[in-house]
Amino acid sequence: MNNSTSLRVRLPVLVLLMEVVFLGLFAGFVTYDDNANAKFQNNETNPMDNSLYRDYPFFADVQVMIFVGFGCLLAFLRLYGFSGMVFNFLTATFTIQWAILMQGYFQFYSDGKIHLGVINLLNAEFACAVVLISFGAVLGKTSPVQLLVMALLEVPIFALTEWAVLKYLKINDAGGSILIHLFACYFGLGVTFVLYRPSLNDGHVKEVTSYQSDILSLMGTLFLWVFWPSFNSALTLKGDDQHRAVLHTFIGLSSSTMTAFALSAVFNKRGKLTMADIQNVTLAGGVTVGASVDMMISPAAAYALGIMGCTACFMGYRYLTPFLARHFRIQDQCGIHNLHGLTGLISCTAGICAILMANEETYGPSMYQIFSHRAPMEGDPKLLELQQLIPGLMPGLGRTAKEQAIYQVAAIFSTIGAAAVGGVLTGFALKLPCLATPSDEFCFDDELFFDVPSDFEFTQLLDDIEIFIMG
Amino acid sequence: MNNSTSLRVRLPVLVLLMEVVFLGLFAGFVTYDDNANAKFQNNETNPMDNSLYRDYPFFADVQVMIFVGFGCLLAFLRLYGFSGMVFNFLTATFTIQWAILMQGYFQFYSDGKIHLGVINLLNAEFACAVVLISFGAVLGKTSPVQLLVMALLEVPIFALTEWAVLKYLKINDAGGSILIHLFACYFGLGVTFVLYRPSLNDGHVKEVTSYQSDILSLMGTLFLWVFWPSFNSALTLKGDDQHRAVLHTFIGLSSSTMTAFALSAVFNKRGKLTMADIQNVTLAGGVTVGASVDMMISPAAAYALGIMGCTACFMGYRYLTPFLARHFRIQDQCGIHNLHGLTGLISCTAGICAILMANEETYGPSMYQIFSHRAPMEGDPKLLELQQLIPGLMPGLGRTAKEQAIYQVAAIFSTIGAAAVGGVLTGFALKLPCLATPSDEFCFDDELFFDVPSDFEFTQLLDDIEIFIMG
Amino acid sequence: MNNSTSLRVRLPVLVLLMEVVFLGLFAGFVTYDDNANAKFQNNETNPMDNSLYRDYPFFADVQVMIFVGFGCLLAFLRLYGFSGMVFNFLTATFTIQWAILMQGYFQFYSDGKIHLGVINLLNAEFACAVVLISFGAVLGKTSPVQLLVMALLEVPIFALTEWAVLKYLKINDAGGSILIHLFACYFGLGVTFVLYRPSLNDGHVKEVTSYQSDILSLMGTLFLWVFWPSFNSALTLKGDDQHRAVLHTFIGLSSSTMTAFALSAVFNKRGKLTMADIQNVTLAGGVTVGASVDMMISPAAAYALGIMGCTACFMGYRYLTPFLARHFRIQDQCGIHNLHGLTGLISCTAGICAILMANEETYGPSMYQIFSHRAPMEGDPKLLELQQLIPGLMPGLGRTAKEQAIYQVAAIFSTIGAAAVGGVLTGFALKLPCLATPSDEFCFDDELFFDVPSDFEFTQLLDDIEIFIMG
Repeated sequence: MNNSTSLRVRLPVLVLLMEVVFLGLFAGFVTYDDNANAKFQNNETNPMDNSLYRDYPFFADVQVMIFVGFGCLLAFLRLYGFSGMVFNFLTATFTIQWAILMQGYFQFYSDGKIHLGVINLLNAEFACAVVLISFGAVLGKTSPVQLLVMALLEVPIFALTEWAVLKYLKINDAGGSILIHLFACYFGLGVTFVLYRPSLNDGHVKEVTSYQSDILSLMGTLFLWVFWPSFNSALTLKGDDQHRAVLHTFIGLSSSTMTAFALSAVFNKRGKLTMADIQNVTLAGGVTVGASVDMMISPAAAYALGIMGCTACFMGYRYLTPFLARHFRIQDQCGIHNLHGLTGLISCTAGICAILMANEETYGPSMYQIFSHRAPMEGDPKLLELQQLIPGLMPGLGRTAKEQAIYQVAAIFSTIGAAAVGGVLTGFALKLPCLATPSDEFCFDDELFFDVPSDFEFTQLLDDIEIFIMG
Repeated sequence: MNNSTSLRVRLPVLVLLMEVVFLGLFAGFVTYDDNANAKFQNNETNPMDNSLYRDYPFFADVQVMIFVGFGCLLAFLRLYGFSGMVFNFLTATFTIQWAILMQGYFQFYSDGKIHLGVINLLNAEFACAVVLISFGAVLGKTSPVQLLVMALLEVPIFALTEWAVLKYLKINDAGGSILIHLFACYFGLGVTFVLYRPSLNDGHVKEVTSYQSDILSLMGTLFLWVFWPSFNSALTLKGDDQHRAVLHTFIGLSSSTMTAFALSAVFNKRGKLTMADIQNVTLAGGVTVGASVDMMISPAAAYALGIMGCTACFMGYRYLTPFLARHFRIQDQCGIHNLHGLTGLISCTAGICAILMANEETYGPSMYQIFSHRAPMEGDPKLLELQQLIPGLMPGLGRTAKEQAIYQVAAIFSTIGAAAVGGVLTGFALKLPCLATPSDEFCFDDELFFDVPSDFEFTQLLDDIEIFIMG
Repeated sequence: MNNSTSLRVRLPVLVLLMEVVFLGLFAGFVTYDDNANAKFQNNETNPMDNSLYRDYPFFADVQVMIFVGFGCLLAFLRLYGFSGMVFNFLTATFTIQWAILMQGYFQFYSDGKIHLGVINLLNAEFACAVVLISFGAVLGKTSPVQLLVMALLEVPIFALTEWAVLKYLKINDAGGSILIHLFACYFGLGVTFVLYRPSLNDGHVKEVTSYQSDILSLMGTLFLWVFWPSFNSALTLKGDDQHRAVLHTFIGLSSSTMTAFALSAVFNKRGKLTMADIQNVTLAGGVTVGASVDMMISPAAAYALGIMGCTACFMGYRYLTPFLARHFRIQDQCGIHNLHGLTGLISCTAGICAILMANEETYGPSMYQIFSHRAPMEGDPKLLELQQLIPGLMPGLGRTAKEQAIYQVAAIFSTIGAAAVGGVLTGFALKLPCLATPSDEFCFDDELFFDVPSDFEFTQLLDDIEIFIMG
């Protein structure tokens, strides 16, 4: 409770400064896209064909995931519920604004303007998911000022990586296994590596849940679970591709959830269920189907991926996380390496297999839509032939399946590299003085950054009271 | 806390075994339906006409109801919140997978394959609602292993009944009053009849709510309330039929809610409101409008149905549930007979009246779409005439209103019969040893199947502490 | 706990009486609109063109806001969580039914019938938002009977004002800044002015939050935040107008949220965050963009409006609310004057500026759709010219921008006037005996109107226990 963690000057200065910058950039560079611009409506425009109606339902679902789902999930600690939900809220809001500008510059920029529609918001929410996943690695050990600085640095690094990978490597990654989950995971691990706190390796007295916080966190899980099909399918092609993305995500989550229950019971010495498993490991399937989510992998493959991802994730929580903390200085608070890293790697592997196995027999001519870089190049007579079957098919790069697979591998390694380096650098930035870093003692404690209601101290004392009453 | 309720072997063996079976069946028999299959897209396919966009919004709403709504609603006990939410999660996930296969076999099977699209998931969520309603009858008295066994048996019995009733009796049941609510209710009562525990008839010391659990449960109610119009309209015909289903459900719920408040106050000796009424009885209207939800019953009739259903449900909770427990060995923990049985019967009666009163004057020619079995048979000149007014009208069975009504009655009785017998048989299966049945003492107690946080015992002690502090 | 606040007779009599009246009115006057009427479907009707699919997604989002969002937000007091959520539920349900009838009479009446579709429900939910906002002014100090009487009077006054303003003044108010937020605010202030309780000016011992109630309330905020774009855009024109409404609302909320964090920290003496700010002030941007939400104001303007609205709202909470309570007898419990009044006024001002600046250069010919009263009058040759560019453009009133602005100003003043007078009169009605008014002592106390679980008293004693244990 000393001055070094007071937010009174630090937070407002940073926030208001950024708001001025954002406002300036919005004023100077952001305009409406064609679907949101009154001027471009004419007698041939059918209002119901507006892109709003294709994008907004998915955007709304992702909104619930980001703000309610993540918020509740991160509020799993007994004395850190305010911080979990509120810092998630602040970080998400900040990140989305910044991502609109950064992704706008890289992806939606033309004629000197960023063109804004709901699709940009949707993309920005994905960037936001990246930052929130990384946040999971340092939950409880960072001030809101540090979180904003992290978002400030992570967003441009992410936007640049995303742009470079999509523009130069041209990969398939509908569910964001590479660009969202792997990037977020290794960035977060990079940050937490630098922010290593030896004293926390033996656990922290406040690192406990309560009955209510466990329930709240589970509600977050359920909201994420329910809307994950929207998340994984939001940026696929419309039609059958999106349809498959919904099916695979649902199936993968389902098999993953059942597996999580089985593993939770079998590894518990007293044969009981552990809430932390149900809150986290159940979701592994959603990540694992990501890279191949829109492909013709068959429902059974989605089912198998859910089981595999869940198993890897569970074992990661059990063995890898403590190992990394003890031997590699990587304290991964929420276990993002299990839920996003390991599962992401499995997902990418599955995606590559699916790419290698894709053929016209299974996909028909629409294979060249899903794997757009495999479409014949401009001028190739095969292109004209295909365009008769699928009007509007864009010319591609004429890649073979193997070539595409090699580019996927390149994307995986370059994304992990960029993320890890970016994370480490960001970690050093977060060690700067004046960022209100909590002392070890006040980690996982809402009281440091919040005016808490009078029953908060009581919550702290619960264990004492129990002893007192029962003793 | 003895070995007989350890989940360490039982749960994983059952779950993993079923996963292997499911995976095998998925691999062998499940493929994409035409809307999800890349191969069937061609130059005449408009992606936005994909069935995904008709089904998915309703599916997403039902997802929230099943996982969040039911989950929170069932977490109303002070010491059974984890179990309520988590067993709901497990049972729902398991049931949906199993129902995809079972309903798939009965309803979506052709060319040796089950054809999978979001519509199958939606149907499976309805099967899931059936199992979760039945679960309400035995909440607190069953282990997760028992619940899975129950789902394992209930799903095929339900799928078979559903298929037989739809194929041979050919009924109108848009909101699922017969096939969902009546089936679920009488199946659950059958199970709980066999699992009768005499010692629980006088109440259980842990059968109490807490301030937080009451609020959590009310949140569940609100999510169910808000999305119930999607539930009741998800499987109707598109267009005006679905429009009416939304209107009727909303109106029925509204009048039911107001009635619940009035009855709660008038029957409370101190003139106060009772949370249990508000959590449960308010929802009665949603069930009561079910059977006639897509018909031209008039908004006023939906309003009246809401009042009637709510009144029956309230009186059921007050008088019938204790009566059934005392005299018929039927311990109906959540009162499903009130919320689904009585209201379902009223709903079916109203549906039959609506069928008897339906005529072309009110419906126009589209009467033969809603009541498709009343459409003239193939070859009837009237069919051709109608097909000019409504292209694509399918030939029917030429049933009269009265005939249709008789088939509805037959469906009601055969569904109740199948459900009750199936429930009783399932109840005996649940009595098998090795299913980790909780002892009477550990009913309604999370500690039996969960690692609980340290403040849980404190929650248990609350009443003692109160006495201690105030004494 | 005396007879004067027993609900046993009062509530049921009022509720059942109103239900009989509503049922009579539904039976006599409410029928389906063309989109919900089977009779009006013919061989040219495409089911997927039904208005249901345009309105229902937005309706469902608003449902979540009204029942879950408002409900949780209003449950922020430690001992008033049941009342906050439950009275919100009751009042909302009652209001919607009454508004369907009242707005139906004024806006959807033809051929002696109110024509009902989902669009009516959507409008009724907006009327419902009005009543719930007003409820915020008197939260904790009113019985459910009083709340129903308030709704009973507020709905017709609102419906009449809405009808008169739309019919005679013909204004632009897509997000409802005038008709929803200003009306609700000044009506609520009128009511609370009359219900002034001097003894509450120094605070009330039960006017405190708890750790759980703060989290619950924040969940409400998040649901409101997430779906606010649907709220603000639900009644705009379809197409680019609705698209802009979504964008502006999202941007305004985002900048408002960041500002709220900055101000919360800077005005807190210990440099911490205050939950009440995050629960309320973050939402200010959603109101502030309301009046110009569908216009071409530019994304940057939406951003600036969010900052301005948030600042005004924050300062209002800090300085104006205590001032109004002390000097003007206006006890505004939830600070609706800050969140809806001040922001509403800023919003209206911005809307007028946007109207004055609107020109064909920015909007193209569709300017005459958004500002429909500026369209040329019937017979004007310019109308024919425009109708070639935009088929189906309706003739307008040929107003200039300035004329339209003057009508907006007139609408603001007449709405505020009608609301304030209506509120004061309603306040007097609420002072009638027999409405179960809580005594000062039992304000903010669930126990007055609810059977509470046994741990409720413990919650009350928390502060004492703390002293006891620590002392």
